[in-house]
Amino acid sequence: MNHDQFQGILHMSYTDHIFAGYHNRLTELAASENPFAKGIVYIEGEYVPLAQARIPILDQGFLHSDLTYDVPAVWDGRFFRLDEHLDRFEKSCEQLRLKSPLGRQEIRDRLTEMVAKSGIRDAYVMMIVTRGLRFIRQYAPEECENFCYLMVMPYMWVMDEQTQKKGGTAVITRTVRRVPPGAIDPTVKNLQWGDFTRGLMEARDRGAMYPILTDGDANLTEGSGFNVILVKDGKLYTPKKGVLEGVTRKSVLAVAEKLGYPYVLDDIPVELAYHCDEILFVTTAGGVMPVTLLDGQPVGNGEVGPVSKALWKGYWDAHYDPTISFAIDYE
Amino acid sequence: MNHDQFQGILHMSYTDHIFAGYHNRLTELAASENPFAKGIVYIEGEYVPLAQARIPILDQGFLHSDLTYDVPAVWDGRFFRLDEHLDRFEKSCEQLRLKSPLGRQEIRDRLTEMVAKSGIRDAYVMMIVTRGLRFIRQYAPEECENFCYLMVMPYMWVMDEQTQKKGGTAVITRTVRRVPPGAIDPTVKNLQWGDFTRGLMEARDRGAMYPILTDGDANLTEGSGFNVILVKDGKLYTPKKGVLEGVTRKSVLAVAEKLGYPYVLDDIPVELAYHCDEILFVTTAGGVMPVTLLDGQPVGNGEVGPVSKALWKGYWDAHYDPTISFAIDYE
Repeated sequence: MNHDQFQGILHMSYTDHIFAGYHNRLTELAASENPFAKGIVYIEGEYVPLAQARIPILDQGFLHSDLTYDVPAVWDGRFFRLDEHLDRFEKSCEQLRLKSPLGRQEIRDRLTEMVAKSGIRDAYVMMIVTRGLRFIRQYAPEECENFCYLMVMPYMWVMDEQTQKKGGTAVITRTVRRVPPGAIDPTVKNLQWGDFTRGLMEARDRGAMYPILTDGDANLTEGSGFNVILVKDGKLYTPKKGVLEGVTRKSVLAVAEKLGYPYVLDDIPVELAYHCDEILFVTTAGGVMPVTLLDGQPVGNGEVGPVSKALWKGYWDAHYDPTISFAIDYE
Repeated sequence: MNHDQFQGILHMSYTDHIFAGYHNRLTELAASENPFAKGIVYIEGEYVPLAQARIPILDQGFLHSDLTYDVPAVWDGRFFRLDEHLDRFEKSCEQLRLKSPLGRQEIRDRLTEMVAKSGIRDAYVMMIVTRGLRFIRQYAPEECENFCYLMVMPYMWVMDEQTQKKGGTAVITRTVRRVPPGAIDPTVKNLQWGDFTRGLMEARDRGAMYPILTDGDANLTEGSGFNVILVKDGKLYTPKKGVLEGVTRKSVLAVAEKLGYPYVLDDIPVELAYHCDEILFVTTAGGVMPVTLLDGQPVGNGEVGPVSKALWKGYWDAHYDPTISFAIDYE
């Protein structure tokens, strides 16, 4: 199937089959009287409604952002690529010498139980391990009792539905660069968003929604919570270094391969962003997000392009693939 | 008074007059039945014992380390340079577009009240403003209701008493560099310690207590929560860029000027650390901390040097100067 065929199939309504079901499920959730319908947290052995969940102010996860985390999602009652998120989470913990008080299987079981308990069919799921109450300056990592928090809440969109249909606006930041991997390793998921927060403010000041940060050496890195993919002449380009190795990006690249779009994972010069046909942001909390205006100028012809549409559809359809997702048994 | 005279006066006991009184006060505090003697927190309009204080898990101060803070100290019942810490705190808030729900005077009054209420005579004091419950990606800063937390707890030492007397051990890290100012501005106090935490682990792995991070371009920056000062031929050298503009460093440089030691505030090449006479770390939570072993090699003659001792004494004596400190009226 070539680009034009896809464009035909997907014209006007490439998102509808996904959003229609979603809206029905949201309506059901809004009517739910389940105390966990707005979110559930596992904390210190108990389940608590999200809005009431509190952590010790002395948790080093707060006092020095000394933690790692991961975010898988549930879509239409199915956990998507949970094991890959758990794999990365385990690696992140190891890298930071954190030891989750809950083992992998217990995290997996509890998260599944929490989703079921909440009745949430489309969920943003977060697992966090923090250093705990002991400051790493004073103790060896093995002397610290680490904490694990688990959260399940209704799915969040980095880009709202309407914007996904027409494309978002972005800037390449000029007042802030991405933290380099030699300082903080972006492949180890962290919540130290100082550079991203500055980027978001610059984007807003310049009338755009999203920032893309550079590595300070004229290469692209990533945006505030998403990987960046450029499309040029039917080929995908996405930065290899200085970025999170996103599970969603991996999913999207797998879809691209299946559809016959080759990709390049390498240093990506900033300049290419101004001369490409399409720009996509990808993340678990939002999926595939087309960007049609960069630094105030249209990307390509200024509309959501055919490759973006094909990847959008392929990505969401993959959520029903039983080899990478499983159905949750709601009570 | 010249170096040799100082060395004579301070020989063996340059720290004793400070620590003796401190130990007496600690003993008194340990016997206190005041519920706030181990720390007090102001949170959502109430005072809570430190160990029981909790914050919402949804606070963006936790979820994206989106906050700023400052740390003044109380020594022997006197607040030290509180107004300078408040000045910097206000600038940090402005830079991050945070608006403290408590005004400057209210923070000042409450902190003083909290110290008095706790009975703590030597205190580590922390003021934090977080973004609150709204994620800056989705809202303009002015739409976010920010939170303010205040904490008073017994004074903490980055370097313990015994080590201050004989000097600490440090490494210049080779597996991690400091986050550059173009990514996260170190003059705006933040708790994003990813690079420092890596540095602390490297130091520990190499058998040392403290890391000094470079800027990745062969200049020194700072360590995990302290500024660095090198002493060479009676002159002080301390990095200008890529570091916190420390209030303690400012105090120490003022003492140095008074004692006739000139200082250089500029790019400081890494190499100088290996060829200097003395190394000092300075921070509010620990004061002036001599380092006598760097990368396993003695600094100078391997003992705490005369300039370090003079600055140590001058720094602590300044805590009784009524132009930069004030007595707290304990109940």
